[in-house]
Amino acid sequence: MHEFTLWAPRVKRASVKVGAATYPMAGPDSKGWWKVSVEAAEPGDDYAFVLDDDPTPYPDPRSLWQPHGVHGPSRIYNQAAFSWNDARFQSCPLSSAIIYELHIGTFTTDGTFDAAIARLAYLVELGITHVELMPVAECPGEHGWGYDGVSLFAVTHAYGGPDGLKRFVDAAHERGLAVLLDVVYNHFGPVGNYTGKFGPYVTSRHRTPWGDAVNFEGPGSDEVRRFFCDNALMWMRDYHIDGLRLDAITEIVDRSAVHFLEQLSAETETLSADLGRSLVLIAESDLNDPRVVTSREAHGYGLDAQWSDDFHHALFTVLHSEPGKGYYQDFGTLEQLAKSLTQVFVYDGAYSLYRRRHHGRPVEGLSAHRFLGYIQNHDQVGNRAIGDRVEHIVGMQRARLAAALVFTAPFVPMLFQGEEFAASTPFQYFADHDDPKMAKSVSEGRRREFAAFGWNPGSIPDPEDPETFRRSKLNWDEIGDGRHAEMLEWYRQLIRLRRHSPSLNDGDLRNITVVFDEDRHWLTVDRKGEHGSMRVLCNLGDHPVELPNPDLLPVVLASPDGVQVVAEKIFLPPDGVAVLSNESH
Amino acid sequence: MHEFTLWAPRVKRASVKVGAATYPMAGPDSKGWWKVSVEAAEPGDDYAFVLDDDPTPYPDPRSLWQPHGVHGPSRIYNQAAFSWNDARFQSCPLSSAIIYELHIGTFTTDGTFDAAIARLAYLVELGITHVELMPVAECPGEHGWGYDGVSLFAVTHAYGGPDGLKRFVDAAHERGLAVLLDVVYNHFGPVGNYTGKFGPYVTSRHRTPWGDAVNFEGPGSDEVRRFFCDNALMWMRDYHIDGLRLDAITEIVDRSAVHFLEQLSAETETLSADLGRSLVLIAESDLNDPRVVTSREAHGYGLDAQWSDDFHHALFTVLHSEPGKGYYQDFGTLEQLAKSLTQVFVYDGAYSLYRRRHHGRPVEGLSAHRFLGYIQNHDQVGNRAIGDRVEHIVGMQRARLAAALVFTAPFVPMLFQGEEFAASTPFQYFADHDDPKMAKSVSEGRRREFAAFGWNPGSIPDPEDPETFRRSKLNWDEIGDGRHAEMLEWYRQLIRLRRHSPSLNDGDLRNITVVFDEDRHWLTVDRKGEHGSMRVLCNLGDHPVELPNPDLLPVVLASPDGVQVVAEKIFLPPDGVAVLSNESH
Repeated sequence: MHEFTLWAPRVKRASVKVGAATYPMAGPDSKGWWKVSVEAAEPGDDYAFVLDDDPTPYPDPRSLWQPHGVHGPSRIYNQAAFSWNDARFQSCPLSSAIIYELHIGTFTTDGTFDAAIARLAYLVELGITHVELMPVAECPGEHGWGYDGVSLFAVTHAYGGPDGLKRFVDAAHERGLAVLLDVVYNHFGPVGNYTGKFGPYVTSRHRTPWGDAVNFEGPGSDEVRRFFCDNALMWMRDYHIDGLRLDAITEIVDRSAVHFLEQLSAETETLSADLGRSLVLIAESDLNDPRVVTSREAHGYGLDAQWSDDFHHALFTVLHSEPGKGYYQDFGTLEQLAKSLTQVFVYDGAYSLYRRRHHGRPVEGLSAHRFLGYIQNHDQVGNRAIGDRVEHIVGMQRARLAAALVFTAPFVPMLFQGEEFAASTPFQYFADHDDPKMAKSVSEGRRREFAAFGWNPGSIPDPEDPETFRRSKLNWDEIGDGRHAEMLEWYRQLIRLRRHSPSLNDGDLRNITVVFDEDRHWLTVDRKGEHGSMRVLCNLGDHPVELPNPDLLPVVLASPDGVQVVAEKIFLPPDGVAVLSNESH
Repeated sequence: MHEFTLWAPRVKRASVKVGAATYPMAGPDSKGWWKVSVEAAEPGDDYAFVLDDDPTPYPDPRSLWQPHGVHGPSRIYNQAAFSWNDARFQSCPLSSAIIYELHIGTFTTDGTFDAAIARLAYLVELGITHVELMPVAECPGEHGWGYDGVSLFAVTHAYGGPDGLKRFVDAAHERGLAVLLDVVYNHFGPVGNYTGKFGPYVTSRHRTPWGDAVNFEGPGSDEVRRFFCDNALMWMRDYHIDGLRLDAITEIVDRSAVHFLEQLSAETETLSADLGRSLVLIAESDLNDPRVVTSREAHGYGLDAQWSDDFHHALFTVLHSEPGKGYYQDFGTLEQLAKSLTQVFVYDGAYSLYRRRHHGRPVEGLSAHRFLGYIQNHDQVGNRAIGDRVEHIVGMQRARLAAALVFTAPFVPMLFQGEEFAASTPFQYFADHDDPKMAKSVSEGRRREFAAFGWNPGSIPDPEDPETFRRSKLNWDEIGDGRHAEMLEWYRQLIRLRRHSPSLNDGDLRNITVVFDEDRHWLTVDRKGEHGSMRVLCNLGDHPVELPNPDLLPVVLASPDGVQVVAEKIFLPPDGVAVLSNESH
């Protein structure tokens, strides 16, 4: 016996097809829901909905399993059947987290949850506390980044389906690792999105870069909000996910008195109390609006944290001297890097050339732990023309220096798969749009986009070519070799330092001091703790520099390229970095 | 000599035509501004801008005077030439205001500022503290409500132009009356809007009921925000306006970290300090979001007050038993009226049938003086099919009862021109779109709109027929007669009571108690002050009721239809209302 439910407020008749049989549904109720209990239906059976006079059966918008992809029937899945082994797991708080972003399809050769499980021990040994999975909802085709999801409750068949994700989370929890999941609540993918057949999921009142915005405020929006809130709660309740990364919340347009994100944060807090597990919500936001991570009591949305792109852009542009293009034109000075380290938003009301308007407002009184800091993530690597990584662009020395700043910055550090061993593989933009017209348009759009930046279109990998996907898979064979092993050891040391230094885990922005010389291009970061001090010295210039060390802090970590301590001075070669500390570790 | 300035970031060449001569402008500067000083140009000269290769001269988007209407040239106007006599004027605070909304075109037979001046003494005598002018910006044609403004800095020639408004404000101030002005910052009118020739004033990212939304957040929005902020500041600085009523702020879509309304409220506060005059901003908002009138320090927009439609709708629907249509379907019970009186928003998170979603959030800890209360306003009268007023619909007795509730409610009371003498003239929707196609579409749209509510299209006044405008003018001859004189005296007494009773001027919602009987349809409102109590008793049922008066409060005002005091009881006939008080007046 299975009870089918469906929100379809616009239709006059609805029925469900299970195998060859069709069962009319009763409805709609006052909220637009239909339902029917089918004695013969059970987990593992495939089904689809038929609406009004349209003979085409459509997959369930809330399908939990799409074994044949986005266009095929849905399959009944029993959430309760999985046998969990993680009853005693509790994640560490975000304030002491080290986050590792990964993409299941390219993290391993096989590209499945089960294959990824085999690498969990490695992550634990590296010092990671949280893995963050790029989206796993069912997307068109056999591979992709995951932001084109259309069946948002179904774990993609390509990675191993719903049970695969559960095995992965359970295995992570068994090893003490928390799992965050990237979810996309700002649009549906362009292929295989049948939600429009069922109800007003989107609205033409607002446009996003992907088309009509999700209907978070118009008629019928209660149930659309339920769709996304229920989705969030499902991952955390039924898949034991420890928190969500909310994609591009800027495009969640909602003028309601209770913003969708505020509702989501309140419901997540309730679930957290119910489950007795800590749950976190992390936004991707380019609004530079502290409201996003301000508590609900103080009239904020109440999210736990957000990505801090200003820190990334400020750091990247001082590493890489190529003239800034796109959003990089707004960055490039050590002053901005210093500002991002001490005030989070570089654009806190200043004029942005890229945006052609003033942007942002100051972060006031918020903990730095409400922000994630990183020098690489899927976007910052993958949205480059050829998906090249920081180390490919600026070399080992500067990549090492960048990592030292990420892990000694006040933000919650995050790294992107392979970054820790200076992976030689790129992470390119790939998709499998399963629709020749759409695929052509994506391929051509990508070439056009980068041609505008002066790239030869022929050198841009074709996103729809399966080879682009395969090329982006990590090569774990290289991990023990030369520069890869060296970088891995550097990351291990930095992560160990981060996790064991009280001053580095202090989110109070008043306890950080940054000094820099824009001309000679050096920068120092001082972090004062109760039990000692930490100082990071970086030389980003072309010439050696001598920086003072009056309190004779011992060097605890230094780049292997000639950093020297001479009495009260530290000598740094170009691209040299040293971490000094008198804290006990 | 006159310096012409123009924001036109998109054009390659700009020049200004003054008389027969054309002067090329220098620009654009980094913000997109052009300018030129013309020796021969002086106040009173007409001018227009010419852009790139387009030979058509366009009026200045910031024109201060359009003597020939929206399509004609702009005229140089010297803001500083007017000689003001109001140096000593200070407006009373909003918390003790009595607001009178009026439409210059129909307030008098002549329909000008100068004609309106002749009625100011009457308003003062009535007890009004603030007049609120419907929009006065230049609109297409010779008459209209004013919400189709396109030349937002120009006072319409139809009312007497810029000097006319100044004479009006000066005269009001001389009589101790403050002047509020309705401004429209959510769209430009559909005819004569040439702003698109000059810059990105609007954006297709958001749609409003009137088309593309104003660009408050996209590229170029700094200068668009300046356009509207400068407009607001101009009225308050150069025209001595005491505050603004911001039309339908719901359609100001702005995801910026600093919302346009927050910016406007901060700039208004600065101007207020500069001028040494109190300035207020009042929103029309159907968001039911307390954020609008929450202070900026508490992360609100910091506006001073907003209109409270829920109180209106709750009151109107208990007066008028016709089955609710449109937004009235959400109202109709005494319980809702009681809720609006004690909690402001009836929809504070509840499900709205009209909106087909949950709506609003509770007002917590805000003063009732942040909300305006009324039973009539231009929309509530004029947006009815035939523009009939409350007294036309429910009769004198109930109109009297409604007014008693408005003036004894905790909100800042507002009335609409003619309401106070039960004017027999309607206030219908009229326009003069000055474009046959648009006029036809407006006329037909209006008929269609009301046909959907069951009206005979032939009975709907044609908005574009000048007779509809003329029919809507007040007839001041009737003011001394029968029911008109009676109603006027009732309003005078209520306003006197309101202004002199401390309990009625208390904005603390905790000091108001409402008791009602939904079946017998009576309701009492108790307001407790430090120096005594006030009680309002209303019988909205079909039968007489006896309500207790245990503390033997004296009757200070009662409808003239048989209200009787019998020992500890008050006897109220159907539609009867009595106000009891032991406060000294």
